Amino acid sequence: MWIQKEIRLEPRPRGFHLITEELLGELPELRNLRVGMMNVFIMHTSASLTINENADPAVRQDLESWFNRAVPEGEPWCRHRDEGPDDLPAHIKSSILGNSLDIPIAGGRPGLGTWQGIYLCEHRNHGGSRSIMVTVQGE
Amino acid sequence: MWIQKEIRLEPRPRGFHLITEELLGELPELRNLRVGMMNVFIMHTSASLTINENADPAVRQDLESWFNRAVPEGEPWCRHRDEGPDDLPAHIKSSILGNSLDIPIAGGRPGLGTWQGIYLCEHRNHGGSRSIMVTVQGE
Amino acid sequence: MWIQKEIRLEPRPRGFHLITEELLGELPELRNLRVGMMNVFIMHTSASLTINENADPAVRQDLESWFNRAVPEGEPWCRHRDEGPDDLPAHIKSSILGNSLDIPIAGGRPGLGTWQGIYLCEHRNHGGSRSIMVTVQGE
Repeated sequence: MWIQKEIRLEPRPRGFHLITEELLGELPELRNLRVGMMNVFIMHTSASLTINENADPAVRQDLESWFNRAVPEGEPWCRHRDEGPDDLPAHIKSSILGNSLDIPIAGGRPGLGTWQGIYLCEHRNHGGSRSIMVTVQGE
Repeated sequence: MWIQKEIRLEPRPRGFHLITEELLGELPELRNLRVGMMNVFIMHTSASLTINENADPAVRQDLESWFNRAVPEGEPWCRHRDEGPDDLPAHIKSSILGNSLDIPIAGGRPGLGTWQGIYLCEHRNHGGSRSIMVTVQGE
Repeated sequence: MWIQKEIRLEPRPRGFHLITEELLGELPELRNLRVGMMNVFIMHTSASLTINENADPAVRQDLESWFNRAVPEGEPWCRHRDEGPDDLPAHIKSSILGNSLDIPIAGGRPGLGTWQGIYLCEHRNHGGSRSIMVTVQGE
């Protein structure tokens, strides 16, 4: 059994955002799966997805702080400048974090650990709405 | 055909550890699969999984050295401090490396290259036992 | 329905290279799949795969510039030195970027966004030909 749907996420400001509820709210079919896999794929190159702590919002702020220091804007070696100083760093961050997640389905729900949440990592200052393709297979 | 099992890994000290043998020892069923995919998913946010060189232990030490320099402890911008100085860096490292691996199955075994091994990346000083969910599909 | 094949990529110089066309040219079978998933797995530990912008070549040059600064050669803490100064940094870069991609298949083709392309990230000065295992499942 395959499920595939494109989901448009609401625009969010630059930073790391917990989207577990918004995403799973679009996937009531997961309840019917005893076992399976879910792929969550973001169809952009300046935003990314990751799994991290779902409790303290400071973790999300600290991720943003670290990535801004590790991949600074306005570096002299940067050649891709047409779309603003936040654009090339956004591409680099998205490759470091990755653009897709593979999450097991077990007993009708994602097999996430107690502290795991799904993050949208918005690397642009004004990224707008983001498209995600979710593909689930299971039985 | 689906196989899904939760595996508890032995506690390991902070660092990068080769777990190929320990993991595959729990999955004798792979021998029966002509073709398939295996997802290995760590259910934590302060440890991660990666694939890297399975021979020289210096590679694993050097990965630990690089990550400790790239994501230092005790930075003034760090807000998430409650669980000790190694905690927030552990969350950042786990998002850089990622919490799951997808490995093809070919001819009854993982289609790893000659030099590829599966690593547990333990980012906490005292992370304890770690839970891994393995989901395999194939025929 | 499963498809699995090993593809040898032409040798490329150190850097980030767009391989979408070369890879998909080997996979005409994708046209027959209404829905599915494709895993692309590089069988090496000193080269990696990522998805990023398929238009401006400056993005690929800037990725190389950033990674060379973030993971410099010849550091005093580096212990794995036998295979030359580019070898250990290549291992670190490959774990940061990852060695496999999971891409949804929708309507007979990869569900990539408009600006997404598949990159081979060659981290060695003389990496030679690289082997990729592609595993597709769908219906």
